[in-house]
Amino acid sequence: MSLSMYRLSIPAFVRGFGVLSSSLDKAEAHARAHGLDSGILVQARLSPDMLPLAGQVQRASDTSKNAISRLTGIEAPSFPDTETTFAELRQRIGNTLDFFASVEPTQLEGSDSREITLKFGKFQTTLAGEEYLLTFALPNFYFHIATAHGILRHQGVQIGKLDYLGPFA
Amino acid sequence: MSLSMYRLSIPAFVRGFGVLSSSLDKAEAHARAHGLDSGILVQARLSPDMLPLAGQVQRASDTSKNAISRLTGIEAPSFPDTETTFAELRQRIGNTLDFFASVEPTQLEGSDSREITLKFGKFQTTLAGEEYLLTFALPNFYFHIATAHGILRHQGVQIGKLDYLGPFA
Repeated sequence: MSLSMYRLSIPAFVRGFGVLSSSLDKAEAHARAHGLDSGILVQARLSPDMLPLAGQVQRASDTSKNAISRLTGIEAPSFPDTETTFAELRQRIGNTLDFFASVEPTQLEGSDSREITLKFGKFQTTLAGEEYLLTFALPNFYFHIATAHGILRHQGVQIGKLDYLGPFA
Repeated sequence: MSLSMYRLSIPAFVRGFGVLSSSLDKAEAHARAHGLDSGILVQARLSPDMLPLAGQVQRASDTSKNAISRLTGIEAPSFPDTETTFAELRQRIGNTLDFFASVEPTQLEGSDSREITLKFGKFQTTLAGEEYLLTFALPNFYFHIATAHGILRHQGVQIGKLDYLGPFA
């Protein structure tokens, strides 16, 4: 297969959510095995000004689905950030994956040169789609997958780097 | 510019190290401002079985330079993981960036189909260069950049998500 905007985005996101889902399963099993309220893990965070686990999953969902929306012009589904349980986080991931499954590789053709405008408060910039994906969307997506991993290990869940790297067939 | 193995790798790594360097500068300033031993930050970690800040920088260096080495066949410099200060971590990053500056974009041409063999203990697999970069090297690199960020925020250093995302021109 040759490099394409599709190859760089949706399969990478799907793989990342697979890693995240597997870690959430292990976290829920950890809570059950130790008689912990699993909601404590869902709300755990690394510092007071960082998002909790639930927020990391929500932002991984938004970052990836909004990237595909910006690159294709297809409207992404909106999710209300109301998840408070592992089951709800799994559903959020599933809904995000359903959106990705609805996008055809051909719909990302030409998106490398599509103009993408980013706004953070008063700051605004316009990037070509390729630049946007490589320097914003992918690093941002992996931030949330890695931070979710860090939160769970900080909480004592027995996962390791190989869980983050995921399966290699 | 069109998608290429060069565009996907070295500029992304250089950008990531820029983000990391900036955060290390803020961490060192934070230690100075609060009269803290900066070595405490260098050795801080999120859990007992995770690498400290120094290790995150060392692995970001290794992951990225070894990826370029595997993709091009060029031998990467070897660094001994002896850094214990911010100055030494900056030097490690600088040495890694020097290696990237020595690689020409043309040297990565065709690396998308180059066979890359990965070994983890007894596990071994072979991936095409493209698959290796997208599913292993980039996620692994961002893991270490994001985890370094998480360690510093967990230690109270005043950095935020925009520091991680880095400058957009």
